[in-house]
Amino acid sequence: PVAVVTSRLGEVVNAQIAVAISAASIVPEAPRLLVQIYKENYSHDLIYQSQSLALNFLRRDQVALIPKFGLASGRDEDKLLGVEYNVRGSGCPILTDCWGYLDCRIINAMDGGDMTCFMADVLDGKTLSDGEPLWWRDARRKLPPEWLEHWQQKQSSEIATSRNTMNQ
Amino acid sequence: PVAVVTSRLGEVVNAQIAVAISAASIVPEAPRLLVQIYKENYSHDLIYQSQSLALNFLRRDQVALIPKFGLASGRDEDKLLGVEYNVRGSGCPILTDCWGYLDCRIINAMDGGDMTCFMADVLDGKTLSDGEPLWWRDARRKLPPEWLEHWQQKQSSEIATSRNTMNQ
Repeated sequence: PVAVVTSRLGEVVNAQIAVAISAASIVPEAPRLLVQIYKENYSHDLIYQSQSLALNFLRRDQVALIPKFGLASGRDEDKLLGVEYNVRGSGCPILTDCWGYLDCRIINAMDGGDMTCFMADVLDGKTLSDGEPLWWRDARRKLPPEWLEHWQQKQSSEIATSRNTMNQ
Repeated sequence: PVAVVTSRLGEVVNAQIAVAISAASIVPEAPRLLVQIYKENYSHDLIYQSQSLALNFLRRDQVALIPKFGLASGRDEDKLLGVEYNVRGSGCPILTDCWGYLDCRIINAMDGGDMTCFMADVLDGKTLSDGEPLWWRDARRKLPPEWLEHWQQKQSSEIATSRNTMNQ
């Protein structure tokens, strides 16, 4: 599912789209995740320093939030301005209006050169909507062509950056 | 797909089934993976010390290799005895007869208490068969009930171990 990763360091909050999330626990009552965050992203340092993040999964009618959170950078604007959120254990913003969330505390981190792979304990999570969350395959079909093009340009630039930094 | 993880440390070789593998690179010509290996597994120390592993994906007619590699421990027997394999850059066994392989070198590792999350560069990989590899959902349907029961018992015991060690 499409996930908005939110973070907070002091008074600064941010949100980005993350695509590389995987499960890292076989113990049902102690869920744990791996979340890869590119170092170029403004969120990276907020997450690294605060040792926390939250995952907010979108509803199927929230495709417009992908360009909002995924194409701009938190360096240039406060992406959460005007977005309603609350705060739970980790201190990170939890979108009031989304499919569901996982509030997480970072417990370990591994350097990948271009990105950091964070290991995170899930402190708390809830489904807030009926039905399915927004999946990437559906999002791609629903996004206007100019957004997809912008997204692809952004991805090409990220690949170029990773090519230069992944072995550092 | 179902993956057999092979490893070698000096003269000792081993093979196990791994279920937690994810992509960790956006650069097409430089694939990189995250592979979670439980510390209890005999393979863990071979991989940790040799800094290498290979992933061997099974063909759809190779379901019988799941119990062979997944239920016994390399501590008790040489699981690769009588199995044909060759060796490439990493030094780990590559099954001659499988759907395809990825030969990998470990470049970083992160402690998860019960498991280690390895980051691995793919040195080399090849598809050796036509058609689809064996997927877990199909494997589960094809495995005899007594093997599935044995597998579930093993999993329950692993969950109990992880519950005790994941926060260490």
